[in-house]
Amino acid sequence: MPVITALETYDIRFPTSRQLDGSDAMNPDPDYSAAYVLLKTDIAGLSGHGFVFTIGRGNDVQTAALAALRYLVVGADLDEITSDLGAFARRLTYDSQLRWLGPEKGVMHMAVGAVINAAWDMAARRAGKPVWQLIADMTPEQLVDLVDFRYISDALTPDEALTLLRDAAPGRAERMATLRARGYPAYTTSPGWLGYSDDKLARLARQAVADGFRAIKIKVGLNVEDDIRRCRIAREAVGPDVALAVDANQRWDVGTAISWLRQLESFNIAWVEEPTSPDDVLAHAAIRGKVAPMPISTGEHTHNRVMFKQLFQAKAVDLIQIDAARVGGVNENIAILLMAAKFGVRVFPHAGGVGLCELVQHLAMADYVAISGSMEDRAIEFVDHLHEHFVDPIRLRDGRYLPPSAPGFSAEMYPQSIERHLFPDGEEWRPTLPAA
Amino acid sequence: MPVITALETYDIRFPTSRQLDGSDAMNPDPDYSAAYVLLKTDIAGLSGHGFVFTIGRGNDVQTAALAALRYLVVGADLDEITSDLGAFARRLTYDSQLRWLGPEKGVMHMAVGAVINAAWDMAARRAGKPVWQLIADMTPEQLVDLVDFRYISDALTPDEALTLLRDAAPGRAERMATLRARGYPAYTTSPGWLGYSDDKLARLARQAVADGFRAIKIKVGLNVEDDIRRCRIAREAVGPDVALAVDANQRWDVGTAISWLRQLESFNIAWVEEPTSPDDVLAHAAIRGKVAPMPISTGEHTHNRVMFKQLFQAKAVDLIQIDAARVGGVNENIAILLMAAKFGVRVFPHAGGVGLCELVQHLAMADYVAISGSMEDRAIEFVDHLHEHFVDPIRLRDGRYLPPSAPGFSAEMYPQSIERHLFPDGEEWRPTLPAA
Repeated sequence: MPVITALETYDIRFPTSRQLDGSDAMNPDPDYSAAYVLLKTDIAGLSGHGFVFTIGRGNDVQTAALAALRYLVVGADLDEITSDLGAFARRLTYDSQLRWLGPEKGVMHMAVGAVINAAWDMAARRAGKPVWQLIADMTPEQLVDLVDFRYISDALTPDEALTLLRDAAPGRAERMATLRARGYPAYTTSPGWLGYSDDKLARLARQAVADGFRAIKIKVGLNVEDDIRRCRIAREAVGPDVALAVDANQRWDVGTAISWLRQLESFNIAWVEEPTSPDDVLAHAAIRGKVAPMPISTGEHTHNRVMFKQLFQAKAVDLIQIDAARVGGVNENIAILLMAAKFGVRVFPHAGGVGLCELVQHLAMADYVAISGSMEDRAIEFVDHLHEHFVDPIRLRDGRYLPPSAPGFSAEMYPQSIERHLFPDGEEWRPTLPAA
Repeated sequence: MPVITALETYDIRFPTSRQLDGSDAMNPDPDYSAAYVLLKTDIAGLSGHGFVFTIGRGNDVQTAALAALRYLVVGADLDEITSDLGAFARRLTYDSQLRWLGPEKGVMHMAVGAVINAAWDMAARRAGKPVWQLIADMTPEQLVDLVDFRYISDALTPDEALTLLRDAAPGRAERMATLRARGYPAYTTSPGWLGYSDDKLARLARQAVADGFRAIKIKVGLNVEDDIRRCRIAREAVGPDVALAVDANQRWDVGTAISWLRQLESFNIAWVEEPTSPDDVLAHAAIRGKVAPMPISTGEHTHNRVMFKQLFQAKAVDLIQIDAARVGGVNENIAILLMAAKFGVRVFPHAGGVGLCELVQHLAMADYVAISGSMEDRAIEFVDHLHEHFVDPIRLRDGRYLPPSAPGFSAEMYPQSIERHLFPDGEEWRPTLPAA
């Protein structure tokens, strides 16, 4: 039988802090990084790629967590994995000793997610399909089998999920054709980093509209006067018809969020992202109640399906972000997308960083074809960073993501990119290099 | 100026799975472990000891997370740390790049907590006091300065905390005398591991009462008929007047928890611990509403003050466990104890494992003297495992913890215990040893 023969890890870091790309109110100087995992097999040419996105320090800890999963993976039967990715995901999630380190949160859970994603990459390559299509071609019954309903059965039962998926099945072929013809809407965060000047913000915001984007997002949360000025600049730059979102990156307590956001009311904010702690379901509900109809959202740091479930149950959010590399892989994201569909909550996937655009497009597209059936008033985040390091980078046209066609999860980095950015011994990190 | 000169880490594991000590419904075969951190200083004889408790695999990941904090600690000014432990805790918690790995949860947050606890151990040694007394001797203003109110100000403001602490101040001296004379109540989990036979359960439960304990706890959650039988055996063994608690270790969904617990109603359960996911505030509230007046609790896996805040706000629990090595150290536990006092929620600290009894006794005793002012209907968990490896082990008399008198946090392990249990090269783990 074919098996997984090795699990290799790589600590890859990009020195993005040298130019303040990606700066926000909580993350002033990120070095976009990937704790990268490679599953090797004894089938010629077949491998699986995955990664956890981090912002620099601690990427070594994350890499160690990937390595801790080796004993569950090396020697495993490939046919068993590709035919039952739900069982594989549960095996990794419920290792009783490793689970103590979460449970289902933080470093260990992100490592579990990356290895599950690498297994999806491998399964999709084997099937000769991109991951979004592999999901979209599954039967409703197969999709339900992927999901771990533990701790969410009070919000979504397997039977409810099955009904929802069966109801969406008849339109799949038409939506797949629409997707291939038109792509999936993107929005861009590139104009709005806190480290950028007002001029750069205005210029990049105008450029975004010229490039076809119908939504942009800017960072807020350090100083309310600055935010009012930056919102005005951005709104004037994009005009009244383009959506303008703001992202506070967890900066506020409940009271501060409410008074701050009331001062941004006149800018017709499309959504407020991460107003407070990602753990605080009740705070999001309290803020939402006080600033309505300004839409409230969170999700890129929401650590598992149990937290998303509560956001839905408490009516704490108008929309959510999902992240491809924070929760327990494709399987847990399918659980989250199913709940979002049931509760009627729109999804704006988190991307940017390194490789997150490449991953999350697959989830959004699978959702459109097979789960929610909608891409109305939804969009995938887009940031134009570091795509050149990926073998199958995203393709954007007129502000929309075009569906990937290569088999796999678009997660594979070029070997030379990996080698050059290895920390701390890759060429990019050698102290003899002049600073960029 | 005196400084921290080194941060050393040790991956220490005890092969407890060989005897099924510590087996429960989610953790069938734990190897009790400590990711141990030692802060060295340039003051002769002064060091600080801390650790994260894990149950085996992944202890290396946890140890790597401790090492990732080295750059924030080595070279730091000792006087600054000991005079402002609040600032030290915030510096570790808010490192922007490391924070991404949580935020404030999982492996990275537990590492932050252990290093903060080691700094408390060091500060207490320097002051010549046990940690419980170091806290209990602080002024209300000093105590408030220890706390990070970010994300909890909607439930507890610094002014409210100050008022609460000032109100408790007049009784401190009397309570300190009471504590020294009588100790703090303990309850025991030793009889109730799932791997034990009915006979062993009955024998150990009777022994617990004979030893002076007024409360015991047994594990449940695998099979309801077994649980009914085990509850009956335990209740008969201890009699009607000793408290009997059950611990499901996160085994159930909401519906299962409710139907299961209704079948245990006749045993006068003192509390139900961890009925479901520790992340699920709303599920605890739903279960509590349906099985009242059976008291509901959680906390040993509750990952930070934001989650505890929501448990209080949602009236999801009748009492909580706190854990000394899960959240962000002494500082975050003081925040949690202050909120518990404000909301009138009783605290039954989680202990057992390796060294958790040693640590958490300090928090419970400081709470009694300076914060809640009460040890009525409260108790610290006690399990009789592995205390012999600690330089200043807990002392129990008639089912009560006696207050430690040695300076520090009782966290220091004997060097020979560390050396023998180092994983994978210590003597205890060498494959040539015969199995126990």
